[in-house]
Amino acid sequence: MGQKILIVGGVAGGASAAARLRRNSEEDQIIMFEKGPHVSFSNCSLPYHLSGIIETAEDLVLMNPELFLRQYNIEARVKNEVTEIDRKNKRVTVKNLENGEEYKESYDKLILSPGASPIVPKIPGVENVKMFTIRNVVDIDMLNHFIKALPEKNVAVIGGGFIGVEAAENLKKGGYSVTLIEGTDQVLRPYDYDMVQIFHKDIMDHGVELILEDTVVQFEKDTVVLSSGRKIHANAVVMAIGVTPETGLAKGAGLEIGITGAIKVDKNYRTNDSDIYAVGDAIEVYNALTHTMTKLSLAGPALKQARSVADHINNKETLNKGYIGSSSIKVFDYNGASTGLNESMIKVMKMNINYEIVRIILSDKVGIMPDAAPMHFKLLFEVPTGKILGAQAIGRGDVTKRIDIIATLIKSGGTVEDLKDLELCYAPPFSTAKDIVNYAGYVGTNLLNGAFKQINIDKVRGLVEDGTLIIDVRETYEFARGHIKGAINIPLSELRGRTDEIPKDRTVYLHCRTGQRSYNATLALQNLGFENIVNITGSFLGLSLFEYFNDVRLGRESIVTDYNFR
Amino acid sequence: MGQKILIVGGVAGGASAAARLRRNSEEDQIIMFEKGPHVSFSNCSLPYHLSGIIETAEDLVLMNPELFLRQYNIEARVKNEVTEIDRKNKRVTVKNLENGEEYKESYDKLILSPGASPIVPKIPGVENVKMFTIRNVVDIDMLNHFIKALPEKNVAVIGGGFIGVEAAENLKKGGYSVTLIEGTDQVLRPYDYDMVQIFHKDIMDHGVELILEDTVVQFEKDTVVLSSGRKIHANAVVMAIGVTPETGLAKGAGLEIGITGAIKVDKNYRTNDSDIYAVGDAIEVYNALTHTMTKLSLAGPALKQARSVADHINNKETLNKGYIGSSSIKVFDYNGASTGLNESMIKVMKMNINYEIVRIILSDKVGIMPDAAPMHFKLLFEVPTGKILGAQAIGRGDVTKRIDIIATLIKSGGTVEDLKDLELCYAPPFSTAKDIVNYAGYVGTNLLNGAFKQINIDKVRGLVEDGTLIIDVRETYEFARGHIKGAINIPLSELRGRTDEIPKDRTVYLHCRTGQRSYNATLALQNLGFENIVNITGSFLGLSLFEYFNDVRLGRESIVTDYNFR
Repeated sequence: MGQKILIVGGVAGGASAAARLRRNSEEDQIIMFEKGPHVSFSNCSLPYHLSGIIETAEDLVLMNPELFLRQYNIEARVKNEVTEIDRKNKRVTVKNLENGEEYKESYDKLILSPGASPIVPKIPGVENVKMFTIRNVVDIDMLNHFIKALPEKNVAVIGGGFIGVEAAENLKKGGYSVTLIEGTDQVLRPYDYDMVQIFHKDIMDHGVELILEDTVVQFEKDTVVLSSGRKIHANAVVMAIGVTPETGLAKGAGLEIGITGAIKVDKNYRTNDSDIYAVGDAIEVYNALTHTMTKLSLAGPALKQARSVADHINNKETLNKGYIGSSSIKVFDYNGASTGLNESMIKVMKMNINYEIVRIILSDKVGIMPDAAPMHFKLLFEVPTGKILGAQAIGRGDVTKRIDIIATLIKSGGTVEDLKDLELCYAPPFSTAKDIVNYAGYVGTNLLNGAFKQINIDKVRGLVEDGTLIIDVRETYEFARGHIKGAINIPLSELRGRTDEIPKDRTVYLHCRTGQRSYNATLALQNLGFENIVNITGSFLGLSLFEYFNDVRLGRESIVTDYNFR
Repeated sequence: MGQKILIVGGVAGGASAAARLRRNSEEDQIIMFEKGPHVSFSNCSLPYHLSGIIETAEDLVLMNPELFLRQYNIEARVKNEVTEIDRKNKRVTVKNLENGEEYKESYDKLILSPGASPIVPKIPGVENVKMFTIRNVVDIDMLNHFIKALPEKNVAVIGGGFIGVEAAENLKKGGYSVTLIEGTDQVLRPYDYDMVQIFHKDIMDHGVELILEDTVVQFEKDTVVLSSGRKIHANAVVMAIGVTPETGLAKGAGLEIGITGAIKVDKNYRTNDSDIYAVGDAIEVYNALTHTMTKLSLAGPALKQARSVADHINNKETLNKGYIGSSSIKVFDYNGASTGLNESMIKVMKMNINYEIVRIILSDKVGIMPDAAPMHFKLLFEVPTGKILGAQAIGRGDVTKRIDIIATLIKSGGTVEDLKDLELCYAPPFSTAKDIVNYAGYVGTNLLNGAFKQINIDKVRGLVEDGTLIIDVRETYEFARGHIKGAINIPLSELRGRTDEIPKDRTVYLHCRTGQRSYNATLALQNLGFENIVNITGSFLGLSLFEYFNDVRLGRESIVTDYNFR
């Protein structure tokens, strides 16, 4: 005597809920409705078809209705759209999109997993361009076929979020000329402005035309017209400025919508109708760090919610500890990962939180291994508790490992002290004996203890303009390759013999290449009685990346004699 | 008015302690004694010189005495051996190994970081072979020069620990014929016997002659004679059976030695003499999981101890939460990582602990990405608390990430429930939306809740010999490629229609390729009223690797019709 459970949406959340429901019970009747032709495809992999990394569109489809039926005894009805929910009689209206027929289906429990749809703003002249969005296999297949057949290969991608950046990368790798247009001053919001410049430079270095702080005002014949007046020739346009939760069905049924505009659910992902659940991109969730409701378009949380719902329907206890938001992205030569809060979130949300940052650059593995590369790492922690709030890492190596460690620690309520104490795996091909996350713990603890003062690279231009004393403690030959204009070079190796050159009555800023030597120099000078020493966090490697991109973009005079990214 | 601090040993722990001491104080006089010619080299990278991955021996040296002096005002005396400690007068006797002169040096505080030395057992006929050990840059340089000049290229490596296996791999890559001889039935003790077969096969697949359960009894002219009577032709022999802590100096000074034979220290790494500290491979530490003292030859802990000592000397509070032991290794195409307890440790130490295992195989990234590969993962957790005790992972992909996450969770006292809830970074090039560690959390929670029963692959031979009913739920075409002899094939996709073929009155064992479909089948049958269903953990992929290696090694008849590692 099972229940009849209907699921709206057959991709991540829907398919996961169905499978878990079946594992929980053989008796329940499970029907999954999907308006598209595919169930259970890999959304996040869609852009990789544009480069050919994923060869065929069929590869993207992980399961089919026949397999759902045979392996799980789950009925998956593709090209069937649920158009209405009749809560009173507990049944839905379904439209068969192949023959246009409508029918009713009753339910004991209903799970909504409709996802989110790409936002396509009303822009004049849209008929003049070929516009595409990327939401499903049909979309990516259509886009791919269209651009493959183009005699000219100019594609404009509008929007610098995950999908926009991944589309731009894969289009470029696929041989297209790509322009990436973003309305704000940066792509990829999970990364702070001082970190994201690494991606900006990398995107430009690979020949993608990156346009920031400019928005589309109009389309002309195969042309995108920007508010700056600039015109971008584009044989195809990919619109990727964001997504909006699919709430039409829920709204039509009078289900409650939250303050974010997404479906409101309780701790068990149940809507205000106790027989209707909702999961995935269509709902809002509780952010355990901001203590606010938020939309989270991420696959992992959707799967977790789906499982919770399937368990709750089967009277199994589930936990909801809220979300912190972890994500990662590959952009050409660089990998990025982030978790929890970043500085711009704290500012945008006007959070009243006292925090400090650790901004370090360290080799991702033993420096003498042939593929070792610097990793840029930024950690936020609360003062005075030391509680870890978030982190971002960008580098050529294994950044997701470091951020996953931080995500694990945040979930455990860990502090910078705990970070110091972590015992991580070490072998030269993978890491260093004191990993960058341990190192971040050390620096964080020192900051918490007031062992030294620091200033971030985005403040250095102001220092230079004010004629502040900056000492570069790199070796002379490094200084010669490029340095901050007006900076004095006193190598760490000569520092103790040249303290008479350093004034005691004013603030002195130190830096080196990555911040390690300048940190040593900072402590040495403090221990020698200098009271106003400040370490420049991010150091010359971070600074030159930061300045380079902004100098190019803003056409401003450089504050360094030469950029030096080594 | 600083202190005078002497440090014995100038590599990992010693050099780290010195640098931290200097950051803590500019006033202290710091002298570091190293009997070898180099300070601060990368021990763990030594084997990589044999393949040429690290081109020159000089590359292995990270710092030199001149740089220590200039950058840190630390005096590093190489080729100076501390031969005696006069605790009463607080001074040491030092022998200058270049001119043979002896001198005294007084101290306020003394830090011992002498490391451990390779064990070289007394074996008859040692004069008949060229024997080498690998401890420092001089050793590896000598070995490398010797074998490079050999007309014949046969090298025998004795001992299958980290150094032995890494030496074997790098020698093989360097073009030598390599025999790796290990006295027990497996290499790399941090991995359980069911996991380590992946490494065994990989080592053999790459042309290293791997000999297990055989020991060296004698050397003849360029020949290693084994207890089995087998003779191995070897133009050079690398002895790597293990290390023993360098305790001579400590013993001579009457410092207390612990039950493991290493130097005994308190929570602040202080010996029974309150002015003498000891760190690194020479000491014993507290294992927070076994609750016993243990020797831990790992670089990370040595650096942490060094920092603690430097801080304690400068009256800074330090924490000692004990150790869990995390390590990793690259062996040809496979990466391995482990943390905490494994099953063989629990057995060897006769620990009275109630535990269960999760043994799963999952793709390390989205399966349709070109370089996706299966990852073998084993997790141990306590029953009934769910507390995580340890984990091992082996695969071509990012295993250290997964084990570092587990190590972080163990340090936080996390459970399988916490593992489910982790929010990790996901993008198709890096992982899957439900990462293998989340998945392990799900399986662990199910086991804890008694949702299903399981048996590990190492028990399957017994099942086959007993004529037990094993059902292979893979598709027919997979079954045809290779299967367990006597197993019945009922694909998951046909299972519900063929339940009449499955007896209810006896125990039935299920498996598929990786354990995911058989897990679904197990739950389905249970929900259909079958009470004696057991899932084979590790499934056919794990089993065939396991059986393959043992069949070859033990010359026994196979229990599978064909091995299938896909």
